[in-house]
Amino acid sequence: MSNSSSYRVGIVGATGAVGQELIGLLLSRSFPLAELRLLASARSAGRQLEVGGKKLTVQEAKPEAFDGLDIALFAAEGAIAKALAPEAAKRGCLVLDKSSAFRMDPKVPLVIPEINLAATRNHAGIIASPNCSTAIALMGLYPLHRKFGVKRVFFSTYQSVSGTGADAIDELEAQTQAYVKGAAIEKKVYPYQIFQNLIPHIDSFGADGYTGEETKMREESRKIMGLPALQVSATCVRVPVVRAHSVTVNAEFEQPVDVAAAREVLAAFPGAQLLDDPANKVYPTPLDFSRQVKCGVGRIRRDTAFENGLTFWVSGDNLWKGAALNSIQIAEAMIREGIALRPRELATA
Amino acid sequence: MSNSSSYRVGIVGATGAVGQELIGLLLSRSFPLAELRLLASARSAGRQLEVGGKKLTVQEAKPEAFDGLDIALFAAEGAIAKALAPEAAKRGCLVLDKSSAFRMDPKVPLVIPEINLAATRNHAGIIASPNCSTAIALMGLYPLHRKFGVKRVFFSTYQSVSGTGADAIDELEAQTQAYVKGAAIEKKVYPYQIFQNLIPHIDSFGADGYTGEETKMREESRKIMGLPALQVSATCVRVPVVRAHSVTVNAEFEQPVDVAAAREVLAAFPGAQLLDDPANKVYPTPLDFSRQVKCGVGRIRRDTAFENGLTFWVSGDNLWKGAALNSIQIAEAMIREGIALRPRELATA
Repeated sequence: MSNSSSYRVGIVGATGAVGQELIGLLLSRSFPLAELRLLASARSAGRQLEVGGKKLTVQEAKPEAFDGLDIALFAAEGAIAKALAPEAAKRGCLVLDKSSAFRMDPKVPLVIPEINLAATRNHAGIIASPNCSTAIALMGLYPLHRKFGVKRVFFSTYQSVSGTGADAIDELEAQTQAYVKGAAIEKKVYPYQIFQNLIPHIDSFGADGYTGEETKMREESRKIMGLPALQVSATCVRVPVVRAHSVTVNAEFEQPVDVAAAREVLAAFPGAQLLDDPANKVYPTPLDFSRQVKCGVGRIRRDTAFENGLTFWVSGDNLWKGAALNSIQIAEAMIREGIALRPRELATA
Repeated sequence: MSNSSSYRVGIVGATGAVGQELIGLLLSRSFPLAELRLLASARSAGRQLEVGGKKLTVQEAKPEAFDGLDIALFAAEGAIAKALAPEAAKRGCLVLDKSSAFRMDPKVPLVIPEINLAATRNHAGIIASPNCSTAIALMGLYPLHRKFGVKRVFFSTYQSVSGTGADAIDELEAQTQAYVKGAAIEKKVYPYQIFQNLIPHIDSFGADGYTGEETKMREESRKIMGLPALQVSATCVRVPVVRAHSVTVNAEFEQPVDVAAAREVLAAFPGAQLLDDPANKVYPTPLDFSRQVKCGVGRIRRDTAFENGLTFWVSGDNLWKGAALNSIQIAEAMIREGIALRPRELATA
C-alpha cells in the first residue's frame, strides 16, 4: 500500500469519454496520486496518453494489472466490470464502478457521497456509482426529502448524447454538419435522427414497457435514499444536447411544503447550486451546467396537482456528477472521513 | 352570405407562421372556399402572396375588412384578436381564434372538435382554439379519460421553436450555422442559446412560479374536457427542435387501468395515431409528426407511481393540431354537423 497521504489509482476504460473525464478531474482536483495507471481493452493497450505533461502508456485491463493499486476507477461497460471488478477487489484494491453491473447487488453499496457516504463503511471491495440521471435528479430531490419526506415522485428527463458515449457525440456533430451542408443525414448510433429531434428511448425496453434507464431511476433512487417503498415513475428522453442532463421532478411529500424552506435547504446542500429567480430569467440550463461540479436546481414551485408537492428542474453534468466526478468524490470523502479503502476481509491479509 | 356549399374565409395574420399554415391547409384539405381574404397589419398590407397559383393582395386587418366574410381564422397575437375579433363577430362572421385572448372567457367555447364540438352550438361569434401543448397532450389524454376517468395529471413538455414564431426558427437556424462556421452564437429571441441547449421557460412567469404556458395547460385542459376539478401540474421546456411539440404525460384515473384497453381506445380515437411497439423501436418522434394531421401516441405503460395510472408520450405538430389545423377542423366539423356559423343573435338580423 502507498503511504496514507497519496494513493495508487487505476482507471479502467481510460480511453473512453468517462475515462478522459476521470483523468482530467483527478488532476484538476489535485487528487493525491502516488501513481496513475491507465487501463483499457487489449485493442487500446500500448497507446500513449498525455497526462499532466507526462506521457503514460495504456495497459491492458487484466487481473494482474490491478496488483498494487489502492483504488480502481471503473469507467467501462457492465460486462467488463463484472469480469474484472472482483479480480481488482481480490487484490485489495477498492473498485469504484460507474457501470450498472453491481448497483442493485445487496452486498454492494450504491453511493452518492452527499447522501449516503456511511454505506461505504460496509464495502467488500466494490462500491457502485449511480446512473447519471438518478445522481443528477437526487441532487435536487434528496435535500427536499430530508426536509419534507418524499413519498412519490415523477421524473421526466432531457438527456444529452454524451450519456451514450463518444460515438453519439460524433453522430450529433456529423448530423449537424450534414444539415448545414445540405447533405444526407446518416444514423448509426441512434435508431432515429437526433439532430433537431427527440428520442423517448434510452437503454433497452423491459416487459413492463419501461426502459432500463427508467427502471434504474426508480430502483437506484430507492436504494440510495434508503426508501424501498418510494413510488417512482420515470420517462427518459434523449435530446439534441451534447452535455449535461436535465430533469423535471414532480414530488409528493409527507409534510406540508414551503417554497422558501425548499430554497433554503437546496442552497445549503453541497451537491446543489440554487438558481431560482424566474423574474430575472434565472434558472439552470444544461449549457450552463456543463463541466460544473454542482447540479443546478431551479423553477421550484408548489406542485398544483399534489396537496404537499413541489415541482422543480435540475440540470447537471452527466459525465461529472453523473459519472466520473461522483466516483472521485466517493474516494475523496472516504479518505477525508478515514473510511478504510481496503475491504475489511482483506484488511488484515 | 355565401351559398351553403362554400364559404368566404378571411385569415388574420396571413403573413405569419400560423397564417401560412392556414393557407396551405385550406388548399390541401380542399376547404370549400367561395373567397379567401388575406388580412394582416398595415405594415404587410399591399404585399402579394401566391395562393394556389393565383396572386392575392394582403389587406389591412381593420373592422370593415370583415364585411361579407363567413369565417375569420385569427392567427394573430392576443392584443389584435381582442381588438378585432368582436368587430368581425359583430359583422356576422364566425371568428376561430388561435390566440389566448378569449380562451378562458366563459362566454367563449374553447374547442378541440374531437373532444367538445358540442360546445360550438352556443357560440356568440367567437370560438377559441387551445394552446398548442394542450391540444397535443389531450389527443393522448382525452380518449384515456373517456375510458378510465382522469383525476390527476402531470405534463412535462418538449416544445419546438416554431411555437415561438418564425423569428425563433430563424434564431435556431442562425445559431446552428454559426456553430458549424465557428462563429459567435448570437441570441435575440430567447434569453439563452437554444442550439444544443434547453430553456425551461415558455411565456412569462406568474406569482406562483408557473409560466403562462404551464397555467394554460392546466386551465385549458379543465375547460376543454369539462373537468373543473382536474388536478394538473405542467412544466414547459423549449428544446432545439424546429417543429412539433412532445409531452410526457403521467395520468391517474378513477378506474383500474389496462394497457391493452388504453391502446384500443387510442387506436380508435380520430385525433391520435397509435405508434407503440417498443420491441421494434416504434414510438413517436417530433420529426415524424411534423406536418401530420394526427398526433402520435406511444410509450404507453402502467404508471409505477400511481395505483391506477398510465404514462405515455405524445408528439404532434404545434403549427397544425396545435394551431392552424385545429381551427380549420372546428369549421369543417361545424359545417359537417350543420352547426350554424353565424352567431344566434345575428342569425335573424
